[in-house]
Amino acid sequence: MKKINKLLVANRGEISLRIMRTAKEMGIKTVAVYSEADRDAPHVKFADEAVCLGPPASAQSYLLGDKIIAVCKSLQVDAIHPGYGFLSENADFARKVTNAGIIFVGPSPESIEVMGSKLAAKSTVSQYDIPMVPGTDEAISDIPAAKERAFEIGYPILIKASAGGGGKGMRVVENEGEFEDQMNRAISEAQSSFGDGAVFIEKYITSPKHIEIQVLGDQHGNIVHLFERECSVQRRHQKIIEEAPSAVVSPEMRKAMGEAAVQVARSCNYYGAGTVEFIVDEQLKFYFLEMNTRLQVEHPVTEMITGKDLVKEQILIAEGYPLSYTQEDLHIHGHAIEVRVYAEDPRNNFLPDIGRLETYIRPQGPGIRVDDGFEQGMDIPIYYDPMIAKLVTHDESREKAIERMIRAIEEYKITGIETTLAFCSFVLQHEKFKSGDFDTKFVEKYFTPEKLNPIFSDQELSLLAAFAVDRFEKKKKSLRMVNSQNGDVQKSSNWKNRLI
Amino acid sequence: MKKINKLLVANRGEISLRIMRTAKEMGIKTVAVYSEADRDAPHVKFADEAVCLGPPASAQSYLLGDKIIAVCKSLQVDAIHPGYGFLSENADFARKVTNAGIIFVGPSPESIEVMGSKLAAKSTVSQYDIPMVPGTDEAISDIPAAKERAFEIGYPILIKASAGGGGKGMRVVENEGEFEDQMNRAISEAQSSFGDGAVFIEKYITSPKHIEIQVLGDQHGNIVHLFERECSVQRRHQKIIEEAPSAVVSPEMRKAMGEAAVQVARSCNYYGAGTVEFIVDEQLKFYFLEMNTRLQVEHPVTEMITGKDLVKEQILIAEGYPLSYTQEDLHIHGHAIEVRVYAEDPRNNFLPDIGRLETYIRPQGPGIRVDDGFEQGMDIPIYYDPMIAKLVTHDESREKAIERMIRAIEEYKITGIETTLAFCSFVLQHEKFKSGDFDTKFVEKYFTPEKLNPIFSDQELSLLAAFAVDRFEKKKKSLRMVNSQNGDVQKSSNWKNRLI
Repeated sequence: MKKINKLLVANRGEISLRIMRTAKEMGIKTVAVYSEADRDAPHVKFADEAVCLGPPASAQSYLLGDKIIAVCKSLQVDAIHPGYGFLSENADFARKVTNAGIIFVGPSPESIEVMGSKLAAKSTVSQYDIPMVPGTDEAISDIPAAKERAFEIGYPILIKASAGGGGKGMRVVENEGEFEDQMNRAISEAQSSFGDGAVFIEKYITSPKHIEIQVLGDQHGNIVHLFERECSVQRRHQKIIEEAPSAVVSPEMRKAMGEAAVQVARSCNYYGAGTVEFIVDEQLKFYFLEMNTRLQVEHPVTEMITGKDLVKEQILIAEGYPLSYTQEDLHIHGHAIEVRVYAEDPRNNFLPDIGRLETYIRPQGPGIRVDDGFEQGMDIPIYYDPMIAKLVTHDESREKAIERMIRAIEEYKITGIETTLAFCSFVLQHEKFKSGDFDTKFVEKYFTPEKLNPIFSDQELSLLAAFAVDRFEKKKKSLRMVNSQNGDVQKSSNWKNRLI
Repeated sequence: MKKINKLLVANRGEISLRIMRTAKEMGIKTVAVYSEADRDAPHVKFADEAVCLGPPASAQSYLLGDKIIAVCKSLQVDAIHPGYGFLSENADFARKVTNAGIIFVGPSPESIEVMGSKLAAKSTVSQYDIPMVPGTDEAISDIPAAKERAFEIGYPILIKASAGGGGKGMRVVENEGEFEDQMNRAISEAQSSFGDGAVFIEKYITSPKHIEIQVLGDQHGNIVHLFERECSVQRRHQKIIEEAPSAVVSPEMRKAMGEAAVQVARSCNYYGAGTVEFIVDEQLKFYFLEMNTRLQVEHPVTEMITGKDLVKEQILIAEGYPLSYTQEDLHIHGHAIEVRVYAEDPRNNFLPDIGRLETYIRPQGPGIRVDDGFEQGMDIPIYYDPMIAKLVTHDESREKAIERMIRAIEEYKITGIETTLAFCSFVLQHEKFKSGDFDTKFVEKYFTPEKLNPIFSDQELSLLAAFAVDRFEKKKKSLRMVNSQNGDVQKSSNWKNRLI
């Protein structure tokens, strides 16, 4: 066991603050790093020491691994927590940290490396009995052979160009009758687009759910899972609402997914906190997607239902402690939901809406947690991810946790910028979400900006209308007076332009 | 079942806000009442409707039961939640509410009445097998008989005047040898003070702990307990730190206390949320003290360890629903601690320190809950209890919950007034508190104002000293110059008066 005395958090915003809070509870001194854009940020104020890394751009600040290691040496820092994003899944950085004699609060560089490559991950995992999306392992051009494989896999089938990308050369085949025709088209399209007619075929999942399993492993070979998180509600392929447990996962499925996730972790000798992501089809079959070798943004929902502080666990594991519990000791208590509050305009295609937090009042009360890195009056910097906060609710049941979240969103007062709060409230009140019957296509299927409550209430609209009518009448009257005085009849048709 | 559609909260501050938050989650409209001093209070802003009751003094506002009932009638309110304090344990008010056809979110007027009288409570409870502090049921003056009873009870013994009060005529007898002499003195003291020489004798508990049990009963005769709260840390006989579970209560003791509490509730046909208070002696024997027929200030610690929203439960019970769980379904998850943040000066005998909240920044992070009714810039009114907030932490173990609380207290920034936060931090770091070995005399035994961190750090003090020396030297020099110019030697001895 090597006790960590001083921890540098190589990150910013809410996650930096969240990690430092736990460090403080453990009696560990904290060091913040920051870019010039974050000089007055709460994570800088919270830390015992803080060092500026450089200009706002990440490449000139938060991504400067060598500089961060140099800071550690000069301040006698004995551990680095990378948070998520930035350097968190950079195997080279993890290796350099370790070589410098500093503890990296995360998995080994080898684990990061293997799971960072889809191909290497697939091949490592394939030695175990982990379900993968069925398909051809190699490119195929023989149509009868492909048809036979497609039959084995079952329809619908996805044909994709071996050399393709960005959806080009991809075709969905609904039934066997269409197969030959579609495959011919796919081959010729691939040939003309990429000069290579080879294609892969795999099972097409019409209604995919994204469900992931949290794992924790120590440096002594013990690995447990902390159940699942349902993360299907996404916009622009980015998660926005997460919950634990999932409404559709049965105890048997949970056990099977959990065991598969532990196997995945075992396949790369994993230690630390990690997340195994699965895609789940309409029949609730699950397939391995990838493993994230770091703390996830959505880790709080797991903390709420298990009572475990995942950062505390990460630090203890990094210090060399064995897990103090087994799989049988872990239980689910109640239900937790997280919504990510982004500075984005859901009425305008979720484009970032950067600016000043003119009003910023957090919701409070039982079962509410807000993880954020801002205070009222601060600007959301344009240089980084526009997430303002994570709002988490916990209650006895999914239904109650949803009710609590709707109340909390209503109580969250943010002005100065548009946020995703109203969008999240829309989702939480949608029948499909409430029933658990939704997939990663929720937003495209059910959301249009008109679905949001209008910016003005009916009462406000009628006040505005009355005000406009009043202005209009006054203007008309004054114009009429002007007209009758000047005899200038032309002007009377211009009153519209004169209305402010 | 009678669905509540609109709820009036006959209270103010944090508890009013806390109740309305839950009501909102349940889809119930809320009505706030307020005094002129609370016009801009958060509980008023939060409510769907709000009505001013009158001037600041409670007797002219929050205690005006009839006026509150009239408000309910005019606003079609179908239920009243009384919170704690004010009208919450007023049986007449509860009866009037019920007679007006409004649901009283609390027990029956009869239960309130019985438990509101110590004598009636004792006699009601005595039919069951509830342990009470052993003693004589009636006044006694026969010394040999008293001595015999004292022997049965066991020493130390407390002798108190039948007509006494405020500690007058009370004597602690440590052993049998002293008994006769002390009893004679007590009788003559009682005779001279009250004109009545009759005394009671009872067991004297040298080191009492205050431990209470939360109960919930429905209107169909089902009663469960939600385990204990340890509330021994008090100042001026007022709780200031509470936790659940207690560090000294074993599973067997918990079961026995829980069952006794359920019996107490059953003895008065109790429904709603209630708390049975016990005094616990050095041998961990527990004795019934009284029953509080309302929500307690410290209810959040029970919510944190059971996952139950007690206000939600109160409302469902008031609507007529049976409890949706049995005793076997209830479990303790982790450990929770609450500290009450009072506008009081622990350096000055905990006297109220009323004023403006110049800075008011709440702590955040996992396992933290703040229940309050103030915002930065607000004044703490002098008319009511000076509690600013309740800070609650929850974690896996008592040790971790304490660490989290110490961190949270450090993060809580309040300026403009003195608070009990530093005092609470002192208690939490005290060996006796950490080991669980403490009683209701903790503050008088272990606390003196010097134990608190000084208002100025050593560094600040040395800066101040340097500043004072500097001023002093300059002043001396200038006085010397004046003296030498004027030859006025007298003045030089007055320099002290001239130092600002």
